[in-house]
Amino acid sequence: MAKKVVTMGEIMLRLSSPGFLRFNQSNSFDVVYGGGEANVAVSLANYGLDAYFVSKLPKHEIGQCAVEALRKQNVKTDFVARGGDRVGIYFLETGASMRPSKVVYDRANSAISEAEISDFDFDAIFKDAEWFHFTGITPALGPKAAALTEAALIAAKKHGVTVSVDLNFRKKLWTPEQAQKVMTPLMQYVDVCIGNEEDAEKVLGFKPGDTNVEKGELELAGYMDMFRRMQDKFNFKYVATSLRESYSASDNGWSALIYDGNEFYHSKKYEVRIVDRVGGGDSFASGLIYGLISGKDYKAALEFGVAASALKHTIFGDFNLVTVEEVEALVGGDASGRVQR
Amino acid sequence: MAKKVVTMGEIMLRLSSPGFLRFNQSNSFDVVYGGGEANVAVSLANYGLDAYFVSKLPKHEIGQCAVEALRKQNVKTDFVARGGDRVGIYFLETGASMRPSKVVYDRANSAISEAEISDFDFDAIFKDAEWFHFTGITPALGPKAAALTEAALIAAKKHGVTVSVDLNFRKKLWTPEQAQKVMTPLMQYVDVCIGNEEDAEKVLGFKPGDTNVEKGELELAGYMDMFRRMQDKFNFKYVATSLRESYSASDNGWSALIYDGNEFYHSKKYEVRIVDRVGGGDSFASGLIYGLISGKDYKAALEFGVAASALKHTIFGDFNLVTVEEVEALVGGDASGRVQR
Amino acid sequence: MAKKVVTMGEIMLRLSSPGFLRFNQSNSFDVVYGGGEANVAVSLANYGLDAYFVSKLPKHEIGQCAVEALRKQNVKTDFVARGGDRVGIYFLETGASMRPSKVVYDRANSAISEAEISDFDFDAIFKDAEWFHFTGITPALGPKAAALTEAALIAAKKHGVTVSVDLNFRKKLWTPEQAQKVMTPLMQYVDVCIGNEEDAEKVLGFKPGDTNVEKGELELAGYMDMFRRMQDKFNFKYVATSLRESYSASDNGWSALIYDGNEFYHSKKYEVRIVDRVGGGDSFASGLIYGLISGKDYKAALEFGVAASALKHTIFGDFNLVTVEEVEALVGGDASGRVQR
Amino acid sequence: MAKKVVTMGEIMLRLSSPGFLRFNQSNSFDVVYGGGEANVAVSLANYGLDAYFVSKLPKHEIGQCAVEALRKQNVKTDFVARGGDRVGIYFLETGASMRPSKVVYDRANSAISEAEISDFDFDAIFKDAEWFHFTGITPALGPKAAALTEAALIAAKKHGVTVSVDLNFRKKLWTPEQAQKVMTPLMQYVDVCIGNEEDAEKVLGFKPGDTNVEKGELELAGYMDMFRRMQDKFNFKYVATSLRESYSASDNGWSALIYDGNEFYHSKKYEVRIVDRVGGGDSFASGLIYGLISGKDYKAALEFGVAASALKHTIFGDFNLVTVEEVEALVGGDASGRVQR
Amino acid sequence: MAKKVVTMGEIMLRLSSPGFLRFNQSNSFDVVYGGGEANVAVSLANYGLDAYFVSKLPKHEIGQCAVEALRKQNVKTDFVARGGDRVGIYFLETGASMRPSKVVYDRANSAISEAEISDFDFDAIFKDAEWFHFTGITPALGPKAAALTEAALIAAKKHGVTVSVDLNFRKKLWTPEQAQKVMTPLMQYVDVCIGNEEDAEKVLGFKPGDTNVEKGELELAGYMDMFRRMQDKFNFKYVATSLRESYSASDNGWSALIYDGNEFYHSKKYEVRIVDRVGGGDSFASGLIYGLISGKDYKAALEFGVAASALKHTIFGDFNLVTVEEVEALVGGDASGRVQR
Amino acid sequence: MAKKVVTMGEIMLRLSSPGFLRFNQSNSFDVVYGGGEANVAVSLANYGLDAYFVSKLPKHEIGQCAVEALRKQNVKTDFVARGGDRVGIYFLETGASMRPSKVVYDRANSAISEAEISDFDFDAIFKDAEWFHFTGITPALGPKAAALTEAALIAAKKHGVTVSVDLNFRKKLWTPEQAQKVMTPLMQYVDVCIGNEEDAEKVLGFKPGDTNVEKGELELAGYMDMFRRMQDKFNFKYVATSLRESYSASDNGWSALIYDGNEFYHSKKYEVRIVDRVGGGDSFASGLIYGLISGKDYKAALEFGVAASALKHTIFGDFNLVTVEEVEALVGGDASGRVQR
Repeated sequence: MAKKVVTMGEIMLRLSSPGFLRFNQSNSFDVVYGGGEANVAVSLANYGLDAYFVSKLPKHEIGQCAVEALRKQNVKTDFVARGGDRVGIYFLETGASMRPSKVVYDRANSAISEAEISDFDFDAIFKDAEWFHFTGITPALGPKAAALTEAALIAAKKHGVTVSVDLNFRKKLWTPEQAQKVMTPLMQYVDVCIGNEEDAEKVLGFKPGDTNVEKGELELAGYMDMFRRMQDKFNFKYVATSLRESYSASDNGWSALIYDGNEFYHSKKYEVRIVDRVGGGDSFASGLIYGLISGKDYKAALEFGVAASALKHTIFGDFNLVTVEEVEALVGGDASGRVQR
Repeated sequence: MAKKVVTMGEIMLRLSSPGFLRFNQSNSFDVVYGGGEANVAVSLANYGLDAYFVSKLPKHEIGQCAVEALRKQNVKTDFVARGGDRVGIYFLETGASMRPSKVVYDRANSAISEAEISDFDFDAIFKDAEWFHFTGITPALGPKAAALTEAALIAAKKHGVTVSVDLNFRKKLWTPEQAQKVMTPLMQYVDVCIGNEEDAEKVLGFKPGDTNVEKGELELAGYMDMFRRMQDKFNFKYVATSLRESYSASDNGWSALIYDGNEFYHSKKYEVRIVDRVGGGDSFASGLIYGLISGKDYKAALEFGVAASALKHTIFGDFNLVTVEEVEALVGGDASGRVQR
Repeated sequence: MAKKVVTMGEIMLRLSSPGFLRFNQSNSFDVVYGGGEANVAVSLANYGLDAYFVSKLPKHEIGQCAVEALRKQNVKTDFVARGGDRVGIYFLETGASMRPSKVVYDRANSAISEAEISDFDFDAIFKDAEWFHFTGITPALGPKAAALTEAALIAAKKHGVTVSVDLNFRKKLWTPEQAQKVMTPLMQYVDVCIGNEEDAEKVLGFKPGDTNVEKGELELAGYMDMFRRMQDKFNFKYVATSLRESYSASDNGWSALIYDGNEFYHSKKYEVRIVDRVGGGDSFASGLIYGLISGKDYKAALEFGVAASALKHTIFGDFNLVTVEEVEALVGGDASGRVQR
Repeated sequence: MAKKVVTMGEIMLRLSSPGFLRFNQSNSFDVVYGGGEANVAVSLANYGLDAYFVSKLPKHEIGQCAVEALRKQNVKTDFVARGGDRVGIYFLETGASMRPSKVVYDRANSAISEAEISDFDFDAIFKDAEWFHFTGITPALGPKAAALTEAALIAAKKHGVTVSVDLNFRKKLWTPEQAQKVMTPLMQYVDVCIGNEEDAEKVLGFKPGDTNVEKGELELAGYMDMFRRMQDKFNFKYVATSLRESYSASDNGWSALIYDGNEFYHSKKYEVRIVDRVGGGDSFASGLIYGLISGKDYKAALEFGVAASALKHTIFGDFNLVTVEEVEALVGGDASGRVQR
Repeated sequence: MAKKVVTMGEIMLRLSSPGFLRFNQSNSFDVVYGGGEANVAVSLANYGLDAYFVSKLPKHEIGQCAVEALRKQNVKTDFVARGGDRVGIYFLETGASMRPSKVVYDRANSAISEAEISDFDFDAIFKDAEWFHFTGITPALGPKAAALTEAALIAAKKHGVTVSVDLNFRKKLWTPEQAQKVMTPLMQYVDVCIGNEEDAEKVLGFKPGDTNVEKGELELAGYMDMFRRMQDKFNFKYVATSLRESYSASDNGWSALIYDGNEFYHSKKYEVRIVDRVGGGDSFASGLIYGLISGKDYKAALEFGVAASALKHTIFGDFNLVTVEEVEALVGGDASGRVQR
Repeated sequence: MAKKVVTMGEIMLRLSSPGFLRFNQSNSFDVVYGGGEANVAVSLANYGLDAYFVSKLPKHEIGQCAVEALRKQNVKTDFVARGGDRVGIYFLETGASMRPSKVVYDRANSAISEAEISDFDFDAIFKDAEWFHFTGITPALGPKAAALTEAALIAAKKHGVTVSVDLNFRKKLWTPEQAQKVMTPLMQYVDVCIGNEEDAEKVLGFKPGDTNVEKGELELAGYMDMFRRMQDKFNFKYVATSLRESYSASDNGWSALIYDGNEFYHSKKYEVRIVDRVGGGDSFASGLIYGLISGKDYKAALEFGVAASALKHTIFGDFNLVTVEEVEALVGGDASGRVQR
């Protein structure tokens, strides 16, 4: 019997211009569905867990398409409430070389951002669950979504569920002040905290070190200092982050760092040629969660997470459509890309 | 020097599943831009008039795409204000045979629906203009858009501009009560009124005759009675409507009726095999307007309008991409579809 | 709690040249998955039933794609055994006007055709089930599949499940002699028998009347005589058939006939403009089954079935992706194809 | 050993907007290759004859693509000279309902239009050949092409080859006066003449009867009178024409008429739903030629031709990709379009 | 009020096989429109200038498509004469790694190559203009186009317009001897001259240094020497060139060099992963022109130009669809390609 | 008169998900045809040889498509027997970066695997032939195919034809034990043997050296030792192998090694950015064969082979669609990828 895991958040309609076309060059948009917590649910289902995604989607056909995208990947949609007006949308233009990818959000007033706590039966949701994952995006959707997140966290803890968060600061959704006010009290429920320096600063108010994410430089020392302070304040079991070195829109370095309150561990670094970098962080979180929930030690879990997300960068769409076997093969050292036949 | 004409309203991003696919069968959506008044502007520009479209669109890339779609068709976008949050969206699934086309609207909070009167310089807009066209959709977008419409009408009349309206009742935007309250006072500015029985009832409160639009039956007598009453009350110069006989999603009969306060004229009827029926009414309105503004008598203008819109049904997208020469050839009787080479 | 229904058979990979292209004109094939019993399962799931599809599929990625196609449509795949070598394939070229559609089968040695009875736990499968549907295709796949079908039928009857069959003679899979030898003894388990004259003759050995299916002529009298004889011999509760009038590859007449052992009922006839006629019979069977299981009288059930399958002809792919509401709207008389907005 | 047949003329690059899109709506053009005599060569190769196409094409890659398109269909390209500057091009926009298809030619200065007689070894070309087909398009390409045609005809006759012509008047290539001056002396070499009233008038100077091809009306009597006069003057063995009734760009009636100097025979008439009507006349000519060369009587040959070209209307591109078996099935009466499986 | 700039030349229909397909692998060609001077006009319009493109295009639909492509990008087409027979065409196959891209030209006899001076009102064209840009391609189209170019230059100078040229030698259009004879006298009108060593040698007769463009090696010293000699002879205000290091069809180094008659300045070098390298030189010229016209010093203008053209390499088609803001961000140092959201 | 060469084996239908999509992300599969020996035949035909492909394909349309794919590339299909049930299929998912490409085979029971010796007239096949090439895949298809291979080899030798083999071990088709039993006796007919260490070990039983193909490391010394032993035992005229360094699915190093019984020669190494690596080995074999048959010395032949196959990696599909001129240009040192125009 597979372990039950739960994520809650928004799943959006993603509309992207094909290939490397600019928005105004295309007569069609590629359609996929995705969003931080949905992406994590899909990965966990792909890894064989019993993954439930909690959200709200309109009753109309576009809402139904989002449900079917989840169902296809074996995510349980029993707790997707149906109602509200819109599916959040984001437009994506894929960059190349020195031209960055561009995202235009059109997600205000989505069904989940206006959902009521009464739309969900959290006792049923968390019954027999082992893990709950959320991100800083959901509370940023508005006061209702923030209240919903808190209610979920309280229920999760009531049921003894392990909780992870991906801080994920989104400057278009709220200010650092708003973020800190909402997010800080939620940290008491969190066991595993994932976030980079920018997230820690903007969402939790930690003063950053010298990491310059724009330049893609990595300052491990700065991260270590910050992780220690985060762990001190919130008593997280683990603090972790992916570390992206952005050489260009086409090539990135990719590794990760974890702190268990005692020791730091910096993973192997992958050089990735990018097909689609959206969902990279989510795939890292999912891999780490899968590693921890399946009984790996935290270092092995981190390696699983970073290998999983390295693979994500080679896969179109928000979802990381890989199996445990594929990730393990990469963790095991085969990055040769030889044809499997 | 081409005559200056003005339309004002919303231009939306239209996302349609390709061919006859249902929404959930496609990995891509075809992208075009359209909307009642924008469609009319495009037709009038195609017919060689100096057509201005007045609207508001966000500064972001999707807003820019809508501007470029208009510009490509030679519509003047000098009076498209830039700002606001969203481009309104509608999703379209094309029906066939007895399966109807389906539209899912996601247009709330579009930039134009929240535009201010101060976003526009109506004196500049209507300077030297000969015609202004609007529809019942714009005031239905909300109180601000209704006020904007009224401001435009007052300015148009100040500049001696002829005004046409397509009543276009949209039940998802407002109730008949709301529609009548807002639209009735606007009729004093209108010279040419276009609308079918349902529109006249819902938007202006005229009790309908026996026309059953669902069955595609036509009751000319009912229409005549209603047109007389409309003309009596509002002193329209012309009242007109297209007459659709919906045999199926694939085949329709298509004709039109006009009343000049004195006489009725029922156009030739076309049997159309449908490629894309969206924008059919707008193409009729544009053809009628072009006919009147270019000096045809009202019967010839009506024939031009109905032929133009018959052709529209064979063209993908909201815009009716035909020339005066193509419409005239059809009016002239050549519906043989022989290859032009 | 939705009623549990079960179908068993093969789901194939369908590869079709796009639009009306001949096989050798296309550089790509459209990909869907389908097959008689899978199509029925999808329809029943779409209608809100708890539909289980029983089959066997290879563990590789193409097998997985078939599973995901079912899962997306909410079909329960708990009883899809994984193993064997191949997914059956069929190639489809869509005809137009007087050019017929063409099917090339490549389905020998598929996983389900070589499945063992021990691959399935029929007690679990039929526990609490209300209905079991199979077709004449599955036993035609080979001796193992025939034995598997019989085992399923015995188990179904043990659990008091209602059984329907669609006779579906496939001349490329077996001869009439083989068919009759295998199928005749299975009829004792059947409550509802669906089949046209050709099926009844080839599969069950009934001498046909004068119906000439090639010419698309309908001889209701011949059918009535045959249905009476079928009911006499096998004591079916209902015998039914769809009635296709093939004017061309583009246009068909479509109705259906049912016999309850007492009375005949001939449904309304639809004139369909065809998008994709594959799965037409399956969609009829599903609609009839849904009608009967949901408590409609047999005439209303037949009307639901024939309307459902009329709609199927307008939908790409094998699956009939329509809802109860859409079918009921057509049954209720709205075939006008007017845009739903 | 298959019989050797020869055609000579131009093969063009055809660029068409996909589906029913207007030229300015598409970001891509579908690519096929075709042209009157090339289309005939392809059909004859498909019917199992040893078909040679004589032409000239540039050495560059686009010229090579045209060669490969022929080779794929088993046309022998041994006598395609390589050189010259351009492949002729035509742009095609597919019409629907009352909107006609549109062709824009860009074929001036193509390699074949500027070819020298010395580019070809006509003795080798016509050695052991049984049939030579040309059309009125090739001499219309210019003086060199006219001289080339005459040289080919003289050589063909020297080798005892039967000659057919499709008169095919093209008003964009020359005037009636030019056509008559060039074409009249070539008629002495012709055994089988194919052409409609317009062709006979414009190309050969026969005063027309009352046929109004624009209206799609058919005046068999007028045709009969003209055929008699043509046969009188040029002593053709057979005179034939296809008869198109153009109801719209989507639906045509299609039949044919032949005269053997003694009797008239009017074929069965087909009602065709059109996929692609380009090459309709060529497919008729090919079917008639195949019928005659394979020993059918002229009535059966005509029926083969008209059935072949009815099928052509359902096939994308210029080439009629059908087999003898498929044509015979339609001649035999099966126009039901039932799935072949 | 935006500054008025003018370019004159040919806009062609570009037909490219999708992705990396060879010409003979594709059933469709991607369609864009472009050409040296048109590309510059589009860039300048995108940068906010009032850009006019002077050319001649046929009245037919393909000519119209070219007009619309310009209009969509806000280029003013008031001075595009309509007439002539053809739109020039080029076929493009995109290379990868060590396989070069391939271009097949089919541009002879295009409308602009046969245009008359009387097709244009140069006084209106250059009234209030600040800049005129042309390239060595236009005079190479033939004697008429050369005369037209000279007429334009004389008129430009009469109106006090600054003139830039991109020498752009095209060996398929003329010989070095022809080029020098036509181009040398035109240099008296030029203020800013852009060209690499090959251009300077072939078009202006300057003996080259050791630069080996095939090997992608760069010999700055050789360039400096040549630039000095060019400036000496023609008294250009600026001489500039882009410097491409062609490692492969997939990766290039890209920088630029300018000389102000006094000092040399070599820009920053970008390493570009190529999406589409056509139009690279045009985008450099446009960026340099924009920089100079908008008041940047020549070094900053060069950096703008080279950054703009680095971005061009990541954009499909001939046009460089970037904004001033995007170029400035790259000039400012952000080449990380991080997602903009 | 071109030299006659013969290859014999299987041509499969290849179905690949577009771009870098995973199998379950695509609604269509790209369609090409290919297979080791067919790929060699295509290359040799492209290089101007008279190339015959010997195989068996079903009579149905999919078999016909494979024939046409060969014919288009000028391969002679006179000796392709028609019959049997299926065309072998393989599914391909293209990897990127550290994600490997994936192949799913569905080739059992293909027509060629069940062909009889009597399906072929080997005397006609090898009459006047100069070269015969086969691979280790064909005998691996089953006992009939192994016997067929032996019959072909005996006939080839009878006609004095030079024979090459590409050992090509396929673990999904047979075990090393089976391979060695079948293949060892066939080596007596072989003049030129191509194979890497894995092939030599698995197919011929040579104990490998230290080459680790997974890591992409190259141990030339190990190869040399093995080649000497292979030559000793079988008296091959040449032993050769391509040497792939698999850095990732996107980038490979590519060179080759040959031994003439006396000397070793290691070619130039290319760094390839991969578009499609399938058929890389076949393109190497074809290039080497072409080099030897056209009279190059073995070192030049090897350089031709390795350059040809470097180019193959940039071309979609199994076939290496390059000309002798293109390969020679690369051999000559131009790997700059500059646009050819």
